[in-house]
Formats: sequence, structure tokens, C-alpha cells
Amino acid sequence: MVSAARTWPSAHPVSVVSVLCAGDADSIESAPVTRLDLDFGGVLGDRHHGLTRPSDTRQLRYYPRGTTIRNRRQLSVVAVDELAEIADQLGLPYLQPGWLGANLLVDGVPALSALPIGSRLLFAGGAGLVCEGVNQPCRLPAELIQAQFPWSSAQAGFVKAAYGRRGIVASVEVPAPLVAGEVFTVALPELHTPPGLRLAHGRRAG
Amino acid sequence: MVSAARTWPSAHPVSVVSVLCAGDADSIESAPVTRLDLDFGGVLGDRHHGLTRPSDTRQLRYYPRGTTIRNRRQLSVVAVDELAEIADQLGLPYLQPGWLGANLLVDGVPALSALPIGSRLLFAGGAGLVCEGVNQPCRLPAELIQAQFPWSSAQAGFVKAAYGRRGIVASVEVPAPLVAGEVFTVALPELHTPPGLRLAHGRRAG
Repeated sequence: MVSAARTWPSAHPVSVVSVLCAGDADSIESAPVTRLDLDFGGVLGDRHHGLTRPSDTRQLRYYPRGTTIRNRRQLSVVAVDELAEIADQLGLPYLQPGWLGANLLVDGVPALSALPIGSRLLFAGGAGLVCEGVNQPCRLPAELIQAQFPWSSAQAGFVKAAYGRRGIVASVEVPAPLVAGEVFTVALPELHTPPGLRLAHGRRAG
Repeated sequence: MVSAARTWPSAHPVSVVSVLCAGDADSIESAPVTRLDLDFGGVLGDRHHGLTRPSDTRQLRYYPRGTTIRNRRQLSVVAVDELAEIADQLGLPYLQPGWLGANLLVDGVPALSALPIGSRLLFAGGAGLVCEGVNQPCRLPAELIQAQFPWSSAQAGFVKAAYGRRGIVASVEVPAPLVAGEVFTVALPELHTPPGLRLAHGRRAG
């Protein structure tokens, strides 16, 4: 299930396999729906919907916990091949995208989790999403997966197995309904990186 | 005026030299003010303020012109050293940041224009900005500069001289007032790029 050529642009067709909504504020689990309605806050009816949200541990190095910040984690996007890789690592027959709280299950984007921040997902129906970065795995899906496969070691192994394979978070640039089967393209951002510039990602300058 | 070590993180102090607002909807020119008041749409009173805006030629490869898109080009940030480089290329004694419609003139960030999308500018007063990418030069500043230096070739040469030096555009993640002299830090985004992945930036996949 690993893409042979992990190169963009890809010759593979790219499509939405399923769309899901996490309608219960008390659980990260999402369930398949016939379509997602978007606005500039994300997926209507999803627990992550909002123009703003309180900052959490992920932003603790940047802002005090609970600071009202713009909501850049509106949608969770996961890939068929990367879910299969996580399942394989855990010795499981499969993983449902809903157990990870995903909103979109996609197929055909090589190395989805490595998509650069600022990349666009441009859907045939007119919607546009912006990649806001890799989704760092947390322990919440582990409990859901363990409950499905009580004989497994998913609870202990999920975070390590999912690292770099848990898909991306995205925000809405252009709202429009999203449906299963919809075709989309991926556009990488234009960059200007002068020769000789070294980057220390994840660290502070100044 | 060119930074000797174009490396992040930097040992240089990083500070806001001046803050400017473009209050006239008919001109890109911005003027120094005592402070900028921010909300989630950008700088209050600035011509670029808004949660959304109509797409323009820069997004023509992604969306039909005039599509209502999220406003990611809220603030323009330029650097002292890069402005001096542009002036030098054009044979001018100096460039005012207001002629480029800048909102922030900063000093101490090496290669500001190359800052990766998703980098954060974190200000002592609590504001947080997200880098939305390099600001591609257009012809509008050229006319303002030519008017200041009628003997120059700024009108013809600006776009080429400013390419990769015209600073970045940014959006508000946490609103708070910004003032001249304020100290800030730069945080690069966390990335996950697996070995062997080749990127073709600015091109479409799928």
C-alpha cells in the first residue's frame, strides 16, 4: 500500500473516498455522512468547527494555554495508504478513518502527511482547503482502536505507529460542499528559498 | 546591509522598527502610525483588512477571479536589510516601507522573504502572526517610487529588483496591538518530510 514514487506532482488519480463528521462534542470519533457543508470556520456540525478556538498543548511553546487563536485545525484529512501502514505496524486488519476523527479519507496523494504547509487541496465542486501541517498523533484514537481490537496493543503503540502517517490538518480557503467520490488536485505553494539558507524547523529565531 | 549568516535561529535581536497603516482604499501607500490594532481580519482601518476578500490574479491558477476566499494577505512585513538591497539594485539612496504598502518594518530576521509558510512571528505584546508566504512584487510600488525619484529607473526595474526581497504577507493568529520598538521572536513550523520525497513547488499534483 506504500506509494512506489513518493513524488509530487503525481500521475495517480486523486479522489475523496469518504467524508465524515464528528458530531459529538464528547468524542473524537467521526462517522461517514453523505456530504460535508463548509463555511470559513470548517465543517458545519463538526466538533472542530469555529473561526477561533482556545490554544492547547500543541501551541504551548507559542501562547499561554487557552489563548483565543484563529482555528487552523478545522478539518482532519487522512489517506488510504497511510492508514494501511499504521494498521500494518499495529498488526491490525484495518483502521477506520472515523476512529481517528478524520473528515476526509483520500486516495492517490503520495505521502499526504508530508504535504507542505500552504499546499492547497482544490476540489471539483469548488471547495479549497489549505494544508496547515502534519497532524501530530495523540492518544485519543488509541483508546477507540483498542476498544475495537481488544486483543491488540493499539493503545500502547498507536502514537509511534501513526507518527508521520496520521494525515494533515487543513483550513477552509473557499467553502463549498464536499462529497465522497469527488476528484481534487493538490497545488504546492510557491516558495522563495535563497541558496545557502539553512532552516532549523520547529525552533525559534531571534 | 546583507546578513552575514543567513541562518535561523538567529543570534541577532529582532524588533519592529515601525508600524504603518494603509488607510486610503485608493492607494497602496501606507503611513507610519503610533500603533496597529489587530483583529482576526488583520489591521483595523487598513485597506487589506477583512476575514475574506475576492481572489485576484495571484490565485487565478486555483480559483476563478473574484471568488470569495479567506483573507490570508492581511499584513505586509518588510525588512530593513532587504529594502536596502532593493534600493541598492535600483541605485536609490533609500526606500520607505510605506511606498511598498508595508504594515511592519522589521530588523534582525535574516532573509525575511524566505521565511517558510506557517512560521510564526510572536510579539512581546501578545500578538501572533502566521507567515502566509513571500510577497510577490507587483508594479504598484514602482509608480510610487518613481514619483519620489523622477531621475531613476525604478518604474522599469522594481519588480526584478524586489523579487525575493519584498518581504512576506501574514495573517493574524492572535490579535493584540503592535507598536514600534516591540521585540518579537520567529518560530519555524514543525515539519515531517520523509527521506526520498521530492517536491515540485508551485506545481499541481494529481
